[in-house]
Amino acid sequence: MEVRIPKRTLAEGLSILERIIPSRSSNPILTYLPMELSDQGLILRGTNGEVDIEVKLPAEVQGTGQVLVPAQTFVQIVRSAPGELVELIFGGKERLELHSGAFNTQLATTGPDGYPELSFGPPGPEKIAASRLAQAITRVRYAASTEEFRAIFRGVQIEMSPTSLRAVASDGYRLACYDLPMQLQTRKLVIPARSADEIVRVFKDAQGEVALAVAEGTLTLVGEAVRMSVKLMEGEFPDYGRVIPQSFVLEATLQAEALRESLKRVAVLSDRNNHRVNLLFNHNKLDIDAEGDYGRGREELGIEASGEPQLMVAYNAQFLIDALAPIEGAVRIKLSGPTSPSLVQAVEDSGYLAVVVPLRV
Amino acid sequence: MEVRIPKRTLAEGLSILERIIPSRSSNPILTYLPMELSDQGLILRGTNGEVDIEVKLPAEVQGTGQVLVPAQTFVQIVRSAPGELVELIFGGKERLELHSGAFNTQLATTGPDGYPELSFGPPGPEKIAASRLAQAITRVRYAASTEEFRAIFRGVQIEMSPTSLRAVASDGYRLACYDLPMQLQTRKLVIPARSADEIVRVFKDAQGEVALAVAEGTLTLVGEAVRMSVKLMEGEFPDYGRVIPQSFVLEATLQAEALRESLKRVAVLSDRNNHRVNLLFNHNKLDIDAEGDYGRGREELGIEASGEPQLMVAYNAQFLIDALAPIEGAVRIKLSGPTSPSLVQAVEDSGYLAVVVPLRV
Repeated sequence: MEVRIPKRTLAEGLSILERIIPSRSSNPILTYLPMELSDQGLILRGTNGEVDIEVKLPAEVQGTGQVLVPAQTFVQIVRSAPGELVELIFGGKERLELHSGAFNTQLATTGPDGYPELSFGPPGPEKIAASRLAQAITRVRYAASTEEFRAIFRGVQIEMSPTSLRAVASDGYRLACYDLPMQLQTRKLVIPARSADEIVRVFKDAQGEVALAVAEGTLTLVGEAVRMSVKLMEGEFPDYGRVIPQSFVLEATLQAEALRESLKRVAVLSDRNNHRVNLLFNHNKLDIDAEGDYGRGREELGIEASGEPQLMVAYNAQFLIDALAPIEGAVRIKLSGPTSPSLVQAVEDSGYLAVVVPLRV
Repeated sequence: MEVRIPKRTLAEGLSILERIIPSRSSNPILTYLPMELSDQGLILRGTNGEVDIEVKLPAEVQGTGQVLVPAQTFVQIVRSAPGELVELIFGGKERLELHSGAFNTQLATTGPDGYPELSFGPPGPEKIAASRLAQAITRVRYAASTEEFRAIFRGVQIEMSPTSLRAVASDGYRLACYDLPMQLQTRKLVIPARSADEIVRVFKDAQGEVALAVAEGTLTLVGEAVRMSVKLMEGEFPDYGRVIPQSFVLEATLQAEALRESLKRVAVLSDRNNHRVNLLFNHNKLDIDAEGDYGRGREELGIEASGEPQLMVAYNAQFLIDALAPIEGAVRIKLSGPTSPSLVQAVEDSGYLAVVVPLRV
């Protein structure tokens, strides 16, 4: 059993797995990296119990078989290997020799027995551009809850339908959703937010499509070189449609970045507990101010507005800054009243929508 | 009382003080930033109890006086100010208005009463290039102890004489010193390692010279725009001269970076407790190897050697890597025997010298 593989290829493959393989575990076998030599190349796997990943790397392989190598040590060695090529020679199941340039290593390895079986299931018939899925999750991820309370909100809900894929996150005080036009079978699933982060990390720069399959509480994504399987949460979001306001008393448009920067400045002075900023929409001006223990901050921005000539609304500055973060170019803010939910939309990207609930006056 | 100052100038001045002004303190007044308006410009001060710093900034100043402003909030505001110019208007001792672009702030301030007096003493007659002092400290800093035991080794000793300035650090297992040719009055002082880090931070990129003065257990450094005063440690290093070996059985020369990289690779496999690597000097070759729980690593480097044809020495890999870090170009390693101290010297910089004690075989 021997493998010859460019160092860069191997290091890139390991970087996909590295984050999910635990460095310590009550089940120490999970800290190992299962390697399989096959006629398809070198196959690496790993799991953190929630997310399973398999990476297939092109390599010159002689022989077939499986061994477990200590993951962290192996990653460090490969990353520091001095040569452009890495040569792996397996001496049975107990020993791996690694050669690269003038550097030689013998690593203690072990047989694959006892490592949990990672089952990725057959790829489904539906496909989706991997980077688009990652993009949809990225845009809404910030709104997911971090509290124990109402655990379902610690996930990102993916809603598929014959017209779209929607990613939704909420913590009960705010909501973000992102729609991609797409033709899919109707279903809803909730991905734990941390696992959603892994999907983003693995697929955000990926070329090509992944095949989707959902079975037995698991979402499987099958790409060309990577297979990933994610345990889903049980249940689904309560009906959030009713908190999305439908009629508005004032609409204002301005540049998202200017508003974001201005909010950050003014918020420095805001109350440390509720981060309250007051927004006074006043004809074609927006006055932002905040007051806290150390003093008061104020800034004025120009806006295009329609509806009521004047309205004062207060927000948690951080919530509004978060809602603006995914927006490039102009933002449209639609107010349904001083204490009822506000809508934040990207003018140049109709897929994005956020709801922020104002603070009580 | 008013100040007009470029945002960049003010932000740079604050960045010098920011790290030493505590964000929390049992004496809350220390979390404030003392500002003085004078005919010399805007003067900012701060202290962490060990290090006092004063920064004089060129500014358009109207009126004179002193106030205390909440340091952290003020730094955040200045850093995020949207304009190129910052205007400060003091409304007595209780209120500071800051204007920059469309952004306006009122900050609660307080009078200077109760803030400890920072005394920098008169500048001494001796001068030294600030960046050279920082450089000497930087080269030896790694060898300072972090242990409670023998507290004096938690400092960096500065030895001045009519021929040189020497910086020395040691933790009892290793030693580093750096000599700068220089004509100074003879004296020894020990700077706490953390305060030495502040000297490096403030002066490493500084142009020009600083005047030195030592009085009442304090080192004062007076530059053009910055004054700094550092509390010294009591006592001095025990005589370390006797651990610097004088006669050698083998000398080897090779590129420092190649050796450092090789040691890092091989050390991945070393025993987690003592980080032991074995160096076998063998004619014109150096064999490096290490063995630990996960296996064994080996690498061979070419060397130029004289003295005994063969010698095996073992080190804590990290200590050797640290000793090599300040060296650019070639390193000369001089061995006095397999268990007695080794010397590590920079071939192209005669100022640097390190002593590393081998591990027992």
